[in-house]
Amino acid sequence: MILRIGHRIPRDERVTTHVCLTARALGADGVFISNVHDSQLVKTINDVTQRFGGGFHVEAGEPWRSTLSKWKREGGKVVHLTAYGISLPKIIDEIRGSREDKLVVVGAEKVPGEMYGLANWNVAVTNQPISEVSALAVFLDWLFEHARLEPQFPNAKIRIIPTEHGKTVATD
Amino acid sequence: MILRIGHRIPRDERVTTHVCLTARALGADGVFISNVHDSQLVKTINDVTQRFGGGFHVEAGEPWRSTLSKWKREGGKVVHLTAYGISLPKIIDEIRGSREDKLVVVGAEKVPGEMYGLANWNVAVTNQPISEVSALAVFLDWLFEHARLEPQFPNAKIRIIPTEHGKTVATD
Repeated sequence: MILRIGHRIPRDERVTTHVCLTARALGADGVFISNVHDSQLVKTINDVTQRFGGGFHVEAGEPWRSTLSKWKREGGKVVHLTAYGISLPKIIDEIRGSREDKLVVVGAEKVPGEMYGLANWNVAVTNQPISEVSALAVFLDWLFEHARLEPQFPNAKIRIIPTEHGKTVATD
Repeated sequence: MILRIGHRIPRDERVTTHVCLTARALGADGVFISNVHDSQLVKTINDVTQRFGGGFHVEAGEPWRSTLSKWKREGGKVVHLTAYGISLPKIIDEIRGSREDKLVVVGAEKVPGEMYGLANWNVAVTNQPISEVSALAVFLDWLFEHARLEPQFPNAKIRIIPTEHGKTVATD
């Protein structure tokens, strides 16, 4: 699961939508949007899942501290994506090797300092200013060993058919 | 180089910023922001490059058709990232094998239909709705064979030191 913290309306609406679409397309089970009840955003993502299939789960509003402590209490591990962390290539084997469920935390601009201590791993997708959207994308692609770029979702009403030059869509 | 098309102020300011940061962090030489003179955005990205180093180049305002035709006239190739394209794992070897300079096109919501014909390759980072930011990130990481996640930029005033739990920054 992904935990999106620091979401603000309207400032982060589009970026958080990109976080959710990325999470879904690249194999995450769902996203918790912390602290803010953004029902419009939840609806947007559920509409995509409805049309393009799969069981992606998005919920909003729970304070991030309680999501995170529940996750750890139930035995899960926490990965925090941050430019300040350990470089992804150096840490990915250790993360892949852990069998516990992972909660991947992606922040908006300001992340509370305590997150760095609460996370089991602080992971950097480059130690450069980057987007949390791309950090999440690259992290998930590496986590799943670059093998999930052709996902097939069950119950899709719309399916895009790969095409060299043009757009092809199959509908149910 | 990256070509960002369909940028609108203020709607796309943050997402286009994420496109530029992603391009810089993951090894692109620069970004052309087509059609719109967004001098604030150019300044934001140049400030990052100033502080974190390297020679990343961003310019805005040229119509995308002229950027693209100049690129092709000078012998370059064009990659268009789109959910409708051929799956990245199926096409990446062909793209890596071509020695010409690449222009990677990332659109905002609506991409003109002619782009699908103008591109040498239409490439899908999943055939699912996804973010153009994550599509660019995953594409660049694959293009550079997952070997550019620890970039060192020359002339950096600020350097982030990878840290397990916390934030460490070195300044010149």
